[in-house]
Order: sequence, then structure tokens, then C-alpha cells
Amino acid sequence: MIYSKIPLSQTIVTLCKTHNVKHIIISPGSRNAPLTIGFTHDDFFKCYSIVDERCAAFFALGIAQQLQEPVAVVCTSGSALLNYYPALSEAYYSNIPLVVISADRPKHLLDIGDGQTIKQKNVYGEHVLYNAHLKLDLKEGENAILENERPILKSIENKLERFLGLQKDIQTHNESEIHDALTISKLNSGPVHINCPFDEPLYDTTTELFINPKPFKLQNREEKIDRFEIKSLLDVWHSAKRKMILVGVLQPNSIEAQWIQEIADDDSIIVLTETTSNLHHPDFFPGIDKLIAPLNDDDFKALQPDLLITFGGLIVSKKIKAFLRTYKPEFHCHVGLTRANDTFFCLEKHIKLRPNTFLSTFLPQVTHHTKSTYKSSWLTVRQKRRKLQEEYIQKLPFSDFKVFNTIIKSIPKQSQLQVGNSSAIRYTQLFQLPKSIDVFCNRGTSGIDGSTSTAIGSSIVAEKRTTLITGDLSFFYDSNALWNNYIPKTFRIIVINNEGGGIFRILPGDKNTENFDRFFETKHHLSAKQLCDMYGFEYVSANNEQDLDLQLESFYKGNKNPKLLEIFTPSRSNDKILIDFFKFIK
Amino acid sequence: MIYSKIPLSQTIVTLCKTHNVKHIIISPGSRNAPLTIGFTHDDFFKCYSIVDERCAAFFALGIAQQLQEPVAVVCTSGSALLNYYPALSEAYYSNIPLVVISADRPKHLLDIGDGQTIKQKNVYGEHVLYNAHLKLDLKEGENAILENERPILKSIENKLERFLGLQKDIQTHNESEIHDALTISKLNSGPVHINCPFDEPLYDTTTELFINPKPFKLQNREEKIDRFEIKSLLDVWHSAKRKMILVGVLQPNSIEAQWIQEIADDDSIIVLTETTSNLHHPDFFPGIDKLIAPLNDDDFKALQPDLLITFGGLIVSKKIKAFLRTYKPEFHCHVGLTRANDTFFCLEKHIKLRPNTFLSTFLPQVTHHTKSTYKSSWLTVRQKRRKLQEEYIQKLPFSDFKVFNTIIKSIPKQSQLQVGNSSAIRYTQLFQLPKSIDVFCNRGTSGIDGSTSTAIGSSIVAEKRTTLITGDLSFFYDSNALWNNYIPKTFRIIVINNEGGGIFRILPGDKNTENFDRFFETKHHLSAKQLCDMYGFEYVSANNEQDLDLQLESFYKGNKNPKLLEIFTPSRSNDKILIDFFKFIK
Repeated sequence: MIYSKIPLSQTIVTLCKTHNVKHIIISPGSRNAPLTIGFTHDDFFKCYSIVDERCAAFFALGIAQQLQEPVAVVCTSGSALLNYYPALSEAYYSNIPLVVISADRPKHLLDIGDGQTIKQKNVYGEHVLYNAHLKLDLKEGENAILENERPILKSIENKLERFLGLQKDIQTHNESEIHDALTISKLNSGPVHINCPFDEPLYDTTTELFINPKPFKLQNREEKIDRFEIKSLLDVWHSAKRKMILVGVLQPNSIEAQWIQEIADDDSIIVLTETTSNLHHPDFFPGIDKLIAPLNDDDFKALQPDLLITFGGLIVSKKIKAFLRTYKPEFHCHVGLTRANDTFFCLEKHIKLRPNTFLSTFLPQVTHHTKSTYKSSWLTVRQKRRKLQEEYIQKLPFSDFKVFNTIIKSIPKQSQLQVGNSSAIRYTQLFQLPKSIDVFCNRGTSGIDGSTSTAIGSSIVAEKRTTLITGDLSFFYDSNALWNNYIPKTFRIIVINNEGGGIFRILPGDKNTENFDRFFETKHHLSAKQLCDMYGFEYVSANNEQDLDLQLESFYKGNKNPKLLEIFTPSRSNDKILIDFFKFIK
Repeated sequence: MIYSKIPLSQTIVTLCKTHNVKHIIISPGSRNAPLTIGFTHDDFFKCYSIVDERCAAFFALGIAQQLQEPVAVVCTSGSALLNYYPALSEAYYSNIPLVVISADRPKHLLDIGDGQTIKQKNVYGEHVLYNAHLKLDLKEGENAILENERPILKSIENKLERFLGLQKDIQTHNESEIHDALTISKLNSGPVHINCPFDEPLYDTTTELFINPKPFKLQNREEKIDRFEIKSLLDVWHSAKRKMILVGVLQPNSIEAQWIQEIADDDSIIVLTETTSNLHHPDFFPGIDKLIAPLNDDDFKALQPDLLITFGGLIVSKKIKAFLRTYKPEFHCHVGLTRANDTFFCLEKHIKLRPNTFLSTFLPQVTHHTKSTYKSSWLTVRQKRRKLQEEYIQKLPFSDFKVFNTIIKSIPKQSQLQVGNSSAIRYTQLFQLPKSIDVFCNRGTSGIDGSTSTAIGSSIVAEKRTTLITGDLSFFYDSNALWNNYIPKTFRIIVINNEGGGIFRILPGDKNTENFDRFFETKHHLSAKQLCDMYGFEYVSANNEQDLDLQLESFYKGNKNPKLLEIFTPSRSNDKILIDFFKFIK
């Protein structure tokens, strides 16, 4: 086996292995050469080379999103690690374990005018769960000590002993810091930063592993059920006539079928889900916006729950946020392992359990209401809206709305769907997806900066084939995502190209002025075709319904390259069609 | 005139105008709509719309690099402003006044699960000179106060008065913060961050300007000559037999001809310049690496200066750093308005004057040495090296080295040259450029992340036409730079495509293994052709000398589109040719 000669490199690589961090995404650089050498020469690791660090980090995020295990990105010193920051903030707010391992110059070479050097320490501020500040190994011989510790050494007889002692302290410190960072990333499911100073020579290798880290006990996330807490909530539950369960971003298969069924059978519970909730039952309410948009004050009062329980991560629907902030439940309890957001300004309780653990403890103690009309009355509304939606679609010209209706139906069963921000995920929410399709979207920061990279990362490790649906701005923003040698042949991208940021047409403000076109919608006439040529994607496009139907017939079929379908929609009518839709289903 | 209805937006826009911040680069978003509305409706401002914030910030950096005046970038909330960070760190280390104006959510909507929301306060850590934390305007009516200040209000009779008083305090605070940020950015020539919380409604406009900022006195950078300081340095100078002046990144025309001549006439002074020094005299020493690379210990001792004076920003040459760190001058004095780097660990003095102000005060008091052979002996060496370089080039096959020799000669007189990191700038240093060509390179962090965007930004405001020379990795990294509607027709890009990071072939470490190809050199077979098709560049390419000569004949001629020349060089021979060059000129 070949190792870097630098003990710190050996320690990081060894501890990543101990902690089972398998996927390592490396961006080229010289300062990080000791890490690159270490990781790439050990078959335990699956290493990926991605040049643009912004894409590299989102790619890693996609892998970690699927595995829910720490995934590492490795870069050189300087501005490189700043390019990780967008993905890192997404990881922070989406509770994804992303491990940044950045090479750094030794302390004495910082801020003295050397190239590729910035203040890397704590550079991610409060957006990481842990900062591991590693220490530079001492060099063989004593120069390093003499340099730093001349006064101390005067009084020390045995310099070699002092050297070995100091190096041992450094080694112990570094092992402990790395261990803590990796443990926290895994247990608390979030990003951490490990900053590694390396001095030259950077490229020296050895066949000898001369570090021997103290064995650490690996921890697994433990859930502690607090009977008293459960009991208290049961009291609230039993006194509540109307219970609402709202589910944000959730991993597929998070909740067992029996609990899903039990909730669905209770007529006093309404379960609101989003496509990103990955939770399905015929009696649940997906398509929150459709339900809520047409309501008036009286309706809202009728919908207002006494008790609100939330599961999962962030909520896409703005309408549900506005509703619950105005018509607050008496009691809001969030159930989940990571942070509880006080999204509706009435959070009373955070139960730190997985939703499934919670339900399996809670539900057996519940006395179910069966005489409530809470659910059934809203199911009637839901049914009406669905019917009206079908009617509306029949009459529609070619448009974003119509296109989403078609493509959502085309997504292969048993597959994974990644969706871009922000129009794409909002449109997707309006349509029903089969249970067997897992849906993901970067909703932590809801940025347009890395959807494609994330989708590609996830496609590498997902057990199901992956399709990305994205808007044009989001797609072009992350165009470097395609500069990637690991894209599966089954990977598909659908770009809805309405020549700009269609979402701005739906928001308030003047439309169809030159100013609006340029600075809000940011009109363009780009196509994804050249990028496909450049990066080896097969490209197809559609400008109307017939085109689209024709292309979709063969789009998902086996192919020797990944494929991209670009659908051009007429930008000027899209906003009206969407706004009219909400009026129509009233 | 149309204004945003939000006082904070009006205040920012008005103060930017007062402070003469003319160029505003806007990325699309909703939270920043009040700013977009404000800036784009006032003809005083030159507004640009750029979608990818990473490119937007480097584009702004390019403008500010040329004007040496604050230039603003404006973005929405969330991860958007993180994409500014790479350019911002470059601005910090290159002393370029870049003003980040980021829209933010109101404080009570942070960290409660709303989309596009991160912890924006102080997000750039120590890489900004100032953080302006602006406060949210109170809403008309009293809801905002009641929300935040219920206890206080109980005892207040006149709530409206209290409201107006609070809003006035907020207004005063905001004006003062914005003023401070813009002043510091200009006076200290560096990046600042202005974070602006806005609440909905975001799109309301008015024809009334209802703020009236207190008039601030604009400050200009003043230089204070300290006679004592100058006198002390004169003593050192006169006792020094060998004086070396080393010039880092410097704006063109920074030093008047008479002082240049006077320095050049002194035989005891060696002036080492880089292409980025923009300082020329036949007796100066450009091409530092060529001079130093072949030297042995005795030569180094003969070159070692007694006194080292540095001007300007960062130094490209690693060889001069290594030399001066080992053969330290007795005294190192840095002359310049911004930070002094202790690059050689022997900095004794920082004189905070512009180099020209310093020289015009210092030189008249100097008694010049005319009997020294310090300069003349090294001019002989320089002459020998130049001759050998010519000989070496004659024999060379088509390669990076040969190509740089050709293209450097092709750059039009009276033009601006922007150079990418890192091979490109290092090769460029080996060749002589005419005095009339101004040279720029992002050497603050020496990143590959924004060279093209910077070059395009600079081309917008530079008085001379602009050519960018860049390597392939750097070019593809910043490919979104071309997604830009403002590129002048005269703009030219030359991409030296050696199918990977050629610099890694020159550094130590194993070569030509699969591992090296993938993780260090990051081999690829991409071409810039499709990007040119996509973004409306005329594309030409060259694979050999004849091709190259032919293409260069017409490359700079007038054209209806900007042009890109891609030169494919054989990657495997480039490193040997460079290493052999340094042996050959010995």
C-alpha cells in the first residue's frame, strides 16, 4: 500500500476508513496532494475527481442525501473551499452529513503574501456543526521546534525527547479532532469542516503506515423515548378535536405501513404531504397549495387544527406557512431527530425521535376518533379540486402547467425523481406522483446553485434510476455539473426552458417591461444543446405537445449515453395559466 | 422617478449615488426586488444582470480592478451571497473595493424553516473590511412595534410618536452603517458587506423619495509623509551597498517616468518586476524565474541584497520567495497604502504611501551609487539568459512554451492583457511584454475560479481592448462567465488547452499514472467550441504552428462577435520542455 509520508494525511485517511466514510470527492490541487495520495491508493475508498469545487460539493451532497452517511470533499488551499459553501449551507439546513476536508498552508505561511492562502479557520461560521482545527506535524529533525519554541528548548536537555513528545501531543490532538468531527457529522447529520495544514514536501510517499490511532468507539444515534413526554402529548391529542399532521422533506420508507394506515383511519386527522415527504396514502392530502389556495376566512377557520404535528425537514408550500401562521394551532409539536423549526411561531414541543419510533410508541396509546367529519369534509374538497384540475388541463394550451402534467406522468415507476428550485418543485407539487417514485429537492436553502450536481451525485448511489426535472436558469447555473465522468447511462434530465426565471412572473411586480425582462425574469435564448454535445449527453427537444409525447415514448429507454430533454414553453402565458388554475378550482 | 416604497432600499440607493458607486451587478431574486427596483430605475447607475452570482462577483471585481472604485453586487437571500465569496476573498487579498449588498429576511424569519434563508450576518468572516448590519424598517402602523416591544409600549401614551422615533433611530443607524461601509471600501480599498433585511411586500413602488439622508462628508485617501520615517530609511539606504526593489501587482502608470529613470540609473539597485507589475525600463529585470532558476549558492550570495524595498501587491514568482527567505536582506521595507506582507520573514518597515509619492519624496534626498557593479553584473546574466532563451525556442516543437512565445508577441500594442491562473501567468512571466500592454491577474488568492469573469468585467470599463490568456481548467471552471450580455466585440480569449492541469506535471510527484491523470492533472477531452456556439463567440482553433500563425493573423481584427482561439498542445511533453528550459539557460 502507498501512503503519504505526512502523518496527518495518514491519520485523516485512516480515521475516515474507521468511520466508514467511503465516498471521497477530490478536486485537483497541490496542497491537498497528501490527502489525494492517501485516499486514492486505498481501495476501501470510492474516489471521484471533480474540478469545480461548487459542483463537487453538491455532487457529494447528493451522495450523502441518499446514503445518509458522511461523504467527504477534499480540496486544496485558498478560495477552493469557499466554492463548497453553497452546498455546505444546503447540507446544514437539510441535515445532510457532508465532511469538508480542506488542505491549508502551515500557520506561519498565512497572511504573509503566499498564493492560494486565505483565512480558512472557521470559514463556514455557524453553518457547520464542528470545526476540527488540525495541527501541523513536526518535521523530522528539530527545525520546526527550534523555529517555534526556541525559548523553551534552551532549558531542555534532550531535544529529541521533546520533539517526540510534542509530535505525540499533536498526533493525539489531531486524532481526537478528526474523530469528533466525523462522529458529530454522522450523529447530528450535518456538515463539518476539517482543516488540515500541510507543509512541503507534499508528494512524498511511503509504504509504511506509521500512525496507529487510539481505537475510538464508534457511536450510533440512539433514540431515547421519554414516557412522560409521550404522555403529555397524548393528553393534548385526546383533547384536540382536529389534528393535522404536516410532513416536510422526509426520506422514503421512513414510516411503516401499519402506522400510516392507522393515521389514515382516524377521521379527526388530516395528513398534509408534499412530494418531498415521500409518504403516501389515498386518504392523505398531497397538493397542499391546491387545497388551500382557493379558501376564504371561513374555510380557513374550518381547517384550522387544534393540534399540529410536523415530521421531517423544510416545507415547500408557502401557502400552508401563511395559513398556519395566521390560523395557529393551539399546540405545535415537531417530531424528528434534528432541529425543530418554529415555522408557525407556535412550536410548543420537540420530540427528538424518528417519526416511526414516535408513532410506534404513541399510536398504541391513542384512542381514535371515528365520529369526526374533519377529514371527510376536506376529502370532498380535495376530490372536487382534482376533478376541476383534470377539466382545466383538458383545455390548456402548451405551457409549463400542461408540460408538468405530462412529464410527471412519464416518470418511470420505481425510480427516483430529483427536482430543481424553484418553479420546478412548485409545479411538481401540483401533480400526483406514484408511491414508488422517491422525490428529492434541495430545500435546505432552496438555491438554484446545485440541483444538477446533487441529482448526479444521488444517481451514483441510488438503487433506482434517476430523473432530474429542472428549470432553465437552475440548469444553466449549474452547467458545470455535467463536467463529470461518473454519470450513469440511465440518468435523465428534463429542462423546462421558458427562457428565464418563470417564477418571477408569478410573483408580484410589473411584468413585461424591459426592466422586468432583464433584471427579474433575466430573459435569455440559450439552449442546453451545446452543453449536451460538449459533455456527451444525448439531446432531444420538444416545442409542442406532439413533439413532447413523441420524445417521451423513447426518452427513458436504454441508451449508451445519459439523455436530456429540453422542452421549450411560451414564457408569456405560463403565469396567467397558473394563476387562473387556482381560480378555476375554487 | 420610480423608487421602492421601502425606506431602506431608498437609503441604500441614495447613498450609493452619493458615494459615486456607479456600477451595480444584479442577480435575479425576489428578496432583493426593492434594491433591483431602486437601482435600475435611476439612470445614474450602470446596472448589469448576471444570473450566476459567482460570475457576477468576479465580473464586478474586474470592473473595480480597473476603476479602483467601489463596485456593487446585489443578490437575494439564502445561498446566493455564498457564491460571491470566492471573488470576495480575491478582492480582500488584492485590495479591490467590492461592495456586497445582500438582501436578507427579517430577523424573526431566520432559522425558523423559511426557504432561501441562511445566517447571513458576518458570513464573510475576516475577509471583509466592514460588515454593515442594517435594520428592518418598521411597517406603517404599529404592528411591528407591538410585536417586538409590547412591554415598553404599555407605558407609552403616544404610540405613533414612539413609532416615528424608533423608525428615525433605524434610519439614522442604517445611513451611518452604509456610509461607513462605502467609505471604508473606498479608503482602504477592499471588500465590505452590507446586509439588508426586507419584509414583504417587496415589489411596491412610489414616485416619492421619502428619505433624506444626513449629508456626510466624503473622504479621500490622504497620504501623510512622515519625514522621520523617510530619514530613517535614507540612513539604511545609504549604508546598503546592494539595493533590490521588488515589484508585485501594480496598477499601470503608478510611477512617473522620472523616478523610474532615476532608479534605473543607479548601479547599486536591481529592480525585479513581474508582468503584473506593469513597470518597465530596459535596465529592470522582468522574468525573475529565468534569472534565479539556474543560480547556485555562490550566485545567490552575490544577488542577496542588503536592503529590499517592495512595492505593490502579491508576488507571482515562487523562486524569488524561496531565494529571499533563505538569503534574507538585512532590511525589508514595504511601500504601499494597503497591508504589508511579511513575505520573506524580515519585514522591518511599512511606509504607508503610494510608491510614486514615496519616490518623489525619497529620491531627491538620495545620494546615488554609481560605482557599484551590482546591477551591471546581473544585466550581463540577464542578457545571456535572453540569448539562450531565443536559441532554445528555435529548436522547440509545438508546446505550451512555444505557444506562449508566439501568442505573447501577438498581443496588440496599447491593449490590456488578463491572464488566468496558474500555468498561464507563470508562462507569461517568462516572456517580455511591450510597455503599452497592461497586465492583470487574480493573484490575491490565485484561484482558477473566476479569471474569465474578471477579464470580461475589466473589458467593459478598460480604455484599451482586452485579451484573456487562460488554461483549459481555469476556462472550463468559469464557463458561466460567457453567460453575459455585455461582452465587447473586441474581447478575445486564448485558451491553451493541454487537456488538464498542466501545472501538476511541473510539480513533484509521480507522473503518467492513471491515478495522476485522474486526480492531479484531471485529464479531459473537452473543447471550448460548444461554449462558443452557445454564447455567441466566434471560435477558431490551432493544433500546430502553421495553424496558430494563420489564426493569429486575423484574430484581433474587427469582428461582429467576440472571439476565442483554442490552442491544443501536447500535454505529455510540456513539463519536460519547461524543466529543460531552465537547465538550458544556465
